[in-house]
Amino acid sequence: MSAAMLLVQKYGGTSVGTIERITRVAERCLAAQRAGHDVAVVVSAMSGETNRLLKLVGQIQDDPNDREVDVIVSTGEQVSVGLVALAIRKLGGKARSFLGHQVKILTDSAFARARIVSIDADPVRAAFRDGAIAVIAGFQGVDEGGNITTLGRGGSDTTGVAIAAALGADACEIYTDVDGVYTTDPNLVPTARKIDRISYEEMLELASLGAKVLQIRSVELAMKFNVPIHVRSSFSEVEGTWVVPEEPQMEHVVVSGVTVARDEAKITVSDIPDTAGVAARLFAPLADGGVVVDMIIQNASTDGTTDLTFTVPSGDRKRAVEILVRDCGELVGTRGERIVTDDDICKVSVVGVGMRSHAGVATRMFQLLAAESINIQLISTSEIKISVVVGKKYAELALRTLHDGFNLDRPPAERTAL
Amino acid sequence: MSAAMLLVQKYGGTSVGTIERITRVAERCLAAQRAGHDVAVVVSAMSGETNRLLKLVGQIQDDPNDREVDVIVSTGEQVSVGLVALAIRKLGGKARSFLGHQVKILTDSAFARARIVSIDADPVRAAFRDGAIAVIAGFQGVDEGGNITTLGRGGSDTTGVAIAAALGADACEIYTDVDGVYTTDPNLVPTARKIDRISYEEMLELASLGAKVLQIRSVELAMKFNVPIHVRSSFSEVEGTWVVPEEPQMEHVVVSGVTVARDEAKITVSDIPDTAGVAARLFAPLADGGVVVDMIIQNASTDGTTDLTFTVPSGDRKRAVEILVRDCGELVGTRGERIVTDDDICKVSVVGVGMRSHAGVATRMFQLLAAESINIQLISTSEIKISVVVGKKYAELALRTLHDGFNLDRPPAERTAL
Repeated sequence: MSAAMLLVQKYGGTSVGTIERITRVAERCLAAQRAGHDVAVVVSAMSGETNRLLKLVGQIQDDPNDREVDVIVSTGEQVSVGLVALAIRKLGGKARSFLGHQVKILTDSAFARARIVSIDADPVRAAFRDGAIAVIAGFQGVDEGGNITTLGRGGSDTTGVAIAAALGADACEIYTDVDGVYTTDPNLVPTARKIDRISYEEMLELASLGAKVLQIRSVELAMKFNVPIHVRSSFSEVEGTWVVPEEPQMEHVVVSGVTVARDEAKITVSDIPDTAGVAARLFAPLADGGVVVDMIIQNASTDGTTDLTFTVPSGDRKRAVEILVRDCGELVGTRGERIVTDDDICKVSVVGVGMRSHAGVATRMFQLLAAESINIQLISTSEIKISVVVGKKYAELALRTLHDGFNLDRPPAERTAL
Repeated sequence: MSAAMLLVQKYGGTSVGTIERITRVAERCLAAQRAGHDVAVVVSAMSGETNRLLKLVGQIQDDPNDREVDVIVSTGEQVSVGLVALAIRKLGGKARSFLGHQVKILTDSAFARARIVSIDADPVRAAFRDGAIAVIAGFQGVDEGGNITTLGRGGSDTTGVAIAAALGADACEIYTDVDGVYTTDPNLVPTARKIDRISYEEMLELASLGAKVLQIRSVELAMKFNVPIHVRSSFSEVEGTWVVPEEPQMEHVVVSGVTVARDEAKITVSDIPDTAGVAARLFAPLADGGVVVDMIIQNASTDGTTDLTFTVPSGDRKRAVEILVRDCGELVGTRGERIVTDDDICKVSVVGVGMRSHAGVATRMFQLLAAESINIQLISTSEIKISVVVGKKYAELALRTLHDGFNLDRPPAERTAL
């Protein structure tokens, strides 16, 4: 890391939660600049600030998908960039803050969940030429009409990666309150180990399966533009986890991580005709209603009727049932008599690019769970992950069992045996 | 007020201090719109918010005149416009918020005290055509380089009047927590009366002499563009005070108001040569140091030397003396031996356009004060005001004596006798 590089550093809300922490962020940016690098820093709102603003909004209306709500919540990051720029100057450095409309982070007009269309990196490059650190507001953008937009929760990660892509940065460092991505949640499994290098694909699966370290869209974007991400702690100097394009030796590690998600609910519709078009008939109105269906399992038919089970976010369970009763009464019963729901579940998954070339991962997973008498309710697989739904009370036990059963408590080199 | 008009309404921090109050603001805007008017509303930050932000800044640096500080403090108004727009919609109306860069309130680049150069009112007119109420952030603008600027404390009044001027509005209503401009401070003088109509010139004198209802620059701007200002309470429906071009009958009222300012200090330099250029020699370094000198009085010379007395804001007194000792040691003494300072003073003034055509106002003022044995230390006059400096302990007594002595406790029609 001695050659001059172009670095993007992204700091989350806890990293800028107080003036003292902001000063530490400023020190870190300056240290990187003094090491000869060009530095752009992307910051979130001070921790608690976005919630404070949404609470004000909540006193007027419930819907957060709104032009005016974006005007309000984007102020959190605006305050942060100003403070970080002041702190850098206070330490003798040069800094300049940029809001979404000043770096022209052009987005579509989907308020509260806008997607980035393009970025004009010229003002940032001008700041670099001027010897300044560019301090850029995360989470926010501007649409064609000049309206302020926001990218949705965790959107600052996406801003960081997008800025890194636009600048052709050597790396996007994501500073957070943990020191990297772990093989599983260390709060639940004490033997969890920090992962040194992981592929975008694996990180995507881990992120979407419940690991909260990185926002999914930021990983997608990094993969698309080949931006190396370095997830690390803002409270220490140790190397964290590099999220990078897949490397040949990664395949030697069969399972990279184990995750659990507890915020899903299971819905089963029984005794529906086993004919073409039934699934589409059920899922179309759910999709129209904005309910995201995750796992879908259909039992083998025996008597011309079948059962269909699927999972949805717990918060959408009630609405999903209402939609089905309203739009598919002929299938689910006019009072939903053929629907059974269950919130008492969790989804446990193992992830690893090595699965592609290693048979037997699923079998081993089922054996490990069976040895602990954990009953599997649903199974779903993809190329690089296997997910099972089990009773919620087994969450920690299943996680520990799979984690250590796949040798994730040992260093990668000792793990390849399986 | 029944014909369709174009109205600008400006609400201060206390008027938008809570969601309940914001809802009341929204109701008021809607009532005006439903009466057939086009309505643009300019809002300040929620009360306390600007101070909260400046306190964050203060933990890093003292200087508020800074690009980054403007980035930070301008968020207060940004939150307010979003909330007011949401509240109007919640009540069934149409609204759209505008930030300084979205209505293009172009200013110079004097951060923290920027002056408005121009406004692009087209986006506001487009909102009107769309049937919407335009909710505009006060206090903020944008410079040629796209940097966010702010107009200084009370700048939202200026934004209100500037928007009214740009739109050619019929009136700019300034909503505040008092119901108008009073003949003097009602907290100090119980017989104070609300003024129905007052000229820009008188309002300027009252504002600069300590009446805190309107920001001076907003009155200057209103005078320049002939914008009628209506100062009124956001908590009642009663008519407040109209600030308008001078009208013939205004001259019948000799004295319109009486004010007191307690934040000045007196500096006397004794035994200086009574020769040309001495005053300039003393005041040039003060001006260079940013110290605003208010009253200046030079005693008649008797023996070739003279005394010079002037007042400065109390907060600048110490610095003023330091500057004089440093730069004018040959006049004030190298340790400032010839300087005497006094913080224990106040400035009491009477204001009225009628003075121009009525002799004897000064005499009457001195008689009234003498009758109460209040010693006058300094006197300064302009075309429409007379100010005297007296001991600070006489502030209330002098104010009451002059207020009732000039019959300001009676309705204007009974006052003309004097």
